[in-house]
Amino acid sequence: MTSVTFQGILAARRVVAQFLQPTPLIHYPELSERLGFHAYIKHENHLPTGCFKVRGGLNFMHHFNAECRGVVTATRGNHGQSIAYAAGKFGVQATVVVPHGNNREKNSAMRAYGAELIEHGVDFDEARELCETLQTERGLYYVHPCMEAPLFHGVGTYSLEIFESLPNVDAIIVPIGGGSGVCGAITVAAAINPAVQIIGVQAENAPAIYLSWKAGKHIQTDSCDTVADGLATRVPFALPFSLIKEGIDTIVLLSESELREGIRLALRYTHNLAEGAGASPIAAAHKLTDTLAGKNVVMVMSGGNVDTGTLKSVLAEASGPGEPAYNRAGD
Amino acid sequence: MTSVTFQGILAARRVVAQFLQPTPLIHYPELSERLGFHAYIKHENHLPTGCFKVRGGLNFMHHFNAECRGVVTATRGNHGQSIAYAAGKFGVQATVVVPHGNNREKNSAMRAYGAELIEHGVDFDEARELCETLQTERGLYYVHPCMEAPLFHGVGTYSLEIFESLPNVDAIIVPIGGGSGVCGAITVAAAINPAVQIIGVQAENAPAIYLSWKAGKHIQTDSCDTVADGLATRVPFALPFSLIKEGIDTIVLLSESELREGIRLALRYTHNLAEGAGASPIAAAHKLTDTLAGKNVVMVMSGGNVDTGTLKSVLAEASGPGEPAYNRAGD
Repeated sequence: MTSVTFQGILAARRVVAQFLQPTPLIHYPELSERLGFHAYIKHENHLPTGCFKVRGGLNFMHHFNAECRGVVTATRGNHGQSIAYAAGKFGVQATVVVPHGNNREKNSAMRAYGAELIEHGVDFDEARELCETLQTERGLYYVHPCMEAPLFHGVGTYSLEIFESLPNVDAIIVPIGGGSGVCGAITVAAAINPAVQIIGVQAENAPAIYLSWKAGKHIQTDSCDTVADGLATRVPFALPFSLIKEGIDTIVLLSESELREGIRLALRYTHNLAEGAGASPIAAAHKLTDTLAGKNVVMVMSGGNVDTGTLKSVLAEASGPGEPAYNRAGD
Repeated sequence: MTSVTFQGILAARRVVAQFLQPTPLIHYPELSERLGFHAYIKHENHLPTGCFKVRGGLNFMHHFNAECRGVVTATRGNHGQSIAYAAGKFGVQATVVVPHGNNREKNSAMRAYGAELIEHGVDFDEARELCETLQTERGLYYVHPCMEAPLFHGVGTYSLEIFESLPNVDAIIVPIGGGSGVCGAITVAAAINPAVQIIGVQAENAPAIYLSWKAGKHIQTDSCDTVADGLATRVPFALPFSLIKEGIDTIVLLSESELREGIRLALRYTHNLAEGAGASPIAAAHKLTDTLAGKNVVMVMSGGNVDTGTLKSVLAEASGPGEPAYNRAGD
């Protein structure tokens, strides 16, 4: 583990730019009217793999020591897809360990990117233990999703893009899971304009970073059962927590029903499929309308990898006024 | 009406590039395995307004005669959003006429882009008639969605981007509604590589262009009742039909259930919300696996503007094997 630096993010941009163009930062007038501020979405869900993490994976592989025989990592989905995708681009062999019963859509996506997929254990922690074994037995490098500075530097490039596209940004709302996304925002804002508010979002059901931030020390939780799997972490890791502790303005906690409503709001106002974490800034913004009134606010749609079953259940519970009639003819 | 030319598309690119960056062309390995060819999606749904038409609107406004007092057009949605958005960027007053009962989500989006919205008549044709009246009464310019070469040239820029990103493209599958998208593909392929197959998609319930292409002459239909409103046209207009008649390799017709399955496939394999027309190339590709085997195939996801009610109903009818269990913890 090294530290996260603005220089590291600038350097990562040259790497990431070889594979990805900047994601769009789109202003949504109708959402702006609803929220009372200038609402912009940073569309990380538009990346290949459908998630911001691929930026980190690519930068990691660029720095990877080719003498190693390959990499191994544990995942429930987005991190593994990022590593599998980036390893494929750099010709590195990737082994990804998932717990038994992991989402089949995510498993088949990782296999399609060329990773060897191993199912092991009943949960993420047991899968992670196998990584440590394989590291020794097979001579693989273990890519920890929350402790590798090159991952954070790659991820930080989206925050750089935000400041370039919208120099007068006032606030950035970022989902916090492992913490790499928000650390990028904190680091870039500190270098470019420390007055920009960095607002994190966590789930009431997975509040480890929130509790740790409040207490000023590492606090783990026993569970992290949320529809927003991108927010589901029980453990605040040292690398991100050191930055979050000092650099964040506030953290908003969301209930499960607020997170699910966020997915519906993202569909309604942006016509984008957002996963729970990706939609969480839109949901959180509804709790911040007073403090953000009139400001330029960027909400990071971190990813779109929600499976069909979850989407179906989220839509089925939609309430409110009757759906508008569907129109069939037209231009 | 003038003609659609490759030079016009090249010139439009300079205009469009002032407002939009190229949309991503993403390779989907898992979809490729399923279809047996190298499957790429051109993500026009990632544009502001969620639809390719905004390219045409921007190029149109660039060429618009500032002596006119503004523009008027009729729409059910995507064309009107494009005109409203582009007019706002150029400081032109836009009036958009929609029939009574038009989709409320689309109406409010157009108002939010700054257009004056007028509800008139029971269907698109009656709305269009009011445009002609307003053209005279208010001195507005009537922007016909299918007869303005600058719209077609702007739209053609996505096909230029396809050839730049994937020089060895073998086939492009494009939804055909009014026909501007496919005319861009035909014109660009003719200039760069006439061997590239251009494959159109229409709805069985709205087959005007298909029937006209088969017959070699203009054939109208009495209705165009399809979930894919981007495909819903009853009338083949002269400007696009003159190009389609000679330039298209084949047109695939899809049933309503195939179009609805397309929306589900887009969600499952790309995690993108596609409207019926936007998902139709993925659905059509399943009928072309023999002829396209092993080739580099671009499917144009033309737009993502499906309303929540339609999405809900499309997902509710999903059948097949049980949905994978949703996993809540992880990275």
